[in-house]
Amino acid sequence: MTGSLVIAGLGPGSDAMVTPEVTGALARATDVVGYIPYVARIAPRAGLTLHASDNRVEMDRATAALRMAAEGRHVVVVSSGDPGVFAMASAVFEALEPHPEWHGLDIRVLPGITAMLAAAAAAGAPLGHDFCAINLSDNLKPFDLVLKRVRLAAEADFAMAFYNPRSKARPDQFGHVLEVLRAACAPERLVILARAVSTPEQALRVLPLCEVTPEMADMRTVVIVGSSATRRVGGWVYTPRSA
Amino acid sequence: MTGSLVIAGLGPGSDAMVTPEVTGALARATDVVGYIPYVARIAPRAGLTLHASDNRVEMDRATAALRMAAEGRHVVVVSSGDPGVFAMASAVFEALEPHPEWHGLDIRVLPGITAMLAAAAAAGAPLGHDFCAINLSDNLKPFDLVLKRVRLAAEADFAMAFYNPRSKARPDQFGHVLEVLRAACAPERLVILARAVSTPEQALRVLPLCEVTPEMADMRTVVIVGSSATRRVGGWVYTPRSA
Repeated sequence: MTGSLVIAGLGPGSDAMVTPEVTGALARATDVVGYIPYVARIAPRAGLTLHASDNRVEMDRATAALRMAAEGRHVVVVSSGDPGVFAMASAVFEALEPHPEWHGLDIRVLPGITAMLAAAAAAGAPLGHDFCAINLSDNLKPFDLVLKRVRLAAEADFAMAFYNPRSKARPDQFGHVLEVLRAACAPERLVILARAVSTPEQALRVLPLCEVTPEMADMRTVVIVGSSATRRVGGWVYTPRSA
Repeated sequence: MTGSLVIAGLGPGSDAMVTPEVTGALARATDVVGYIPYVARIAPRAGLTLHASDNRVEMDRATAALRMAAEGRHVVVVSSGDPGVFAMASAVFEALEPHPEWHGLDIRVLPGITAMLAAAAAAGAPLGHDFCAINLSDNLKPFDLVLKRVRLAAEADFAMAFYNPRSKARPDQFGHVLEVLRAACAPERLVILARAVSTPEQALRVLPLCEVTPEMADMRTVVIVGSSATRRVGGWVYTPRSA
């Protein structure tokens, strides 16, 4: 029996942003694996087993999903947003690495709408020209590397999107990033704080850099910092194509 | 009569990557506006007027779309990929800027699967950690700025995605970018050349930097350059979460 593993992006929250490709993979799945709130988005049905687990066990979850696929199951690992952006796809390939017996498995990654692109769309087009995406969490990398990247991104005049800006376990990181930005950018540089985009709790704030405080971001916030050319038009924020 | 303007992303090519939100907006449209091959993807129906135009007239197209919305039409401007990434959303806001009489229009941007995320998914998870996106076209910005950004992105050890790497009118840019990368990165740095992702013509190549030549990219190619930590596992390429 030949199993399969699909790593699928559910988008930022709204079911209207889930691609038909992902919906089709879920309809064919025998097993859905993922973090509790993402698995909660999948409707139960006969023949489908839901495996919800805590956020801190990505590697265990990835290995379990690979094992089930090797046993002939049709497994979908669900991620919010795009699974290839600070999400489950890298964890699955990391879990695959020490298991050459699984390297021939039928594995596919299905992209989704990642949070920064949904946030950008809700605000206008702040990522309309060259930009970067940085995960501010230092769970798996040194925080000095994060600050170095922010410094160089400011020097390159990229627009920037920050994932995981702040959590209870990491209350101070976003403050340090703001200090680096304030040293490198004008006080009126535009910042978008986009919380829970595309869900009923969506909240969007646009502020100049000098008015942003660390408390304005939490785990559900994506922060977008414009380039030096990013500006407002009407109620919108956009980065011109000449930037 | 109140019109509306939606700027919608059709994804990289496959209809299975078009979100239901975008499909719904197209079903309600009275007018669809866009570059010829993107408008060709929309099925004609009674009550819908298709306005296809050449690629070099983005500002005219954006202004025409805004004018129709102001006249009470329900207009959808279609882009490939995500309209907020090197596409029509910035052009529409740029066209909106000198027309304060239109600033109150009902405008919405609907995100889509942008080419780099579809390409990354097809290859594995090369954008699984901090990354940047750079448009190599110098149609609207100086090429020195492109090279500066590539240099700083290499110093920051971002994975990188390049849009519009090479065209008939700009045959040399990608070669100059490769020179900058070769000066900054090891020869075995992994490069993905992803052409026409999610279409029947999809072609994916993975090569070390030292083997990449400018002729390998064209207008339909997205180029992804891994970070120093990006590696292969089985037939896949991924960037670990600790990178």
